[in-house]
Amino acid sequence: FYRRNLINCLSGFKSVCLCGTMSPQGQPNLAIVSSVIHVGAHPPLMGMLMRPHVVERHTIENIDDTGFFTLNHITQDMITAAHQTSARYPREASEFKAVGLEEEFREGFFAPYVATSPLKIGLSFKEKHKITSNATQFIIGQVEELILPEDAIGEDGFIALEKVGTVTASGLDSYYQAERITRLSYAKPDQAPTEID
Amino acid sequence: FYRRNLINCLSGFKSVCLCGTMSPQGQPNLAIVSSVIHVGAHPPLMGMLMRPHVVERHTIENIDDTGFFTLNHITQDMITAAHQTSARYPREASEFKAVGLEEEFREGFFAPYVATSPLKIGLSFKEKHKITSNATQFIIGQVEELILPEDAIGEDGFIALEKVGTVTASGLDSYYQAERITRLSYAKPDQAPTEID
Repeated sequence: FYRRNLINCLSGFKSVCLCGTMSPQGQPNLAIVSSVIHVGAHPPLMGMLMRPHVVERHTIENIDDTGFFTLNHITQDMITAAHQTSARYPREASEFKAVGLEEEFREGFFAPYVATSPLKIGLSFKEKHKITSNATQFIIGQVEELILPEDAIGEDGFIALEKVGTVTASGLDSYYQAERITRLSYAKPDQAPTEID
Repeated sequence: FYRRNLINCLSGFKSVCLCGTMSPQGQPNLAIVSSVIHVGAHPPLMGMLMRPHVVERHTIENIDDTGFFTLNHITQDMITAAHQTSARYPREASEFKAVGLEEEFREGFFAPYVATSPLKIGLSFKEKHKITSNATQFIIGQVEELILPEDAIGEDGFIALEKVGTVTASGLDSYYQAERITRLSYAKPDQAPTEID
């Protein structure tokens, strides 16, 4: 456990989201994921690394079977419930019910969202890469839907995550709130960056 | 730019590190990267997604040619210099010199570290996956060296990143400090998580 805790902290602060999926038989699943990264804007792509253990396996199977998943930002009041989704519930259990988070379905999108999440992303599966070094899987999804408060989006498209209330995580079990230090202008070789916004 | 800013913010708060490499000819290179994730603890693996544009191409080429790179956490006083490494310097320029960060070499390790970074990781290249949807590359490295203040490591291996001074980022250009909300016990199906540490 010492090594697992230590190595899990090395990547620094992490994105932490709830990943919603549904089986072809209509069984919803919800899993906390802390390895989501931006992959590209044109087309809009996000990646997440999944470990082949039981909790994340249900999520991977549902994505394989249905082609859709959601990512839902976590706020301070959702932390305990979000963390609890990492317990090894049996396949036939819904983590939504087990941890007390309400599911939300949107017309025309197969996978469930977390109703109380302020920033919800609906994605379609694009590609999957097996990491041969440890048998984890890197999954790429394309953003199909985006639900968030409009007043958190700036004129230039920047989302002030502190207004959304998004938390960040470290290691396997720690949750943090973030406070903006600065926003800097686009870097050019012969010019020092200046503060913007 | 609106879309680029918006999509870059969707993944939530991000890891932000300086990636140090050196060409086979001995030319150091330093690039800010915000797409580093934990991949596994046994063996200790980290992944980073690299875009095929000029700044990150020098880094990818050096990793391809030499097999080594470093990841260095960024603290508040390093933000402006770290951000400035994203300017498109010519290949023959050292970003260390250009932005005013001191390089540090350690015996037996080929790639340069950032001297003032409080948490430095030396990695060897393991594997690379080309994301076909947008031609980015997902690079996997294995942790070979780890330099950090011992008093930031807990008895169970957890690293208190707030003691290290690590910052986090959002979007293309915003930097944040993080404050711990809670650390929760390992989740079990019939038990609510409790606060630890």
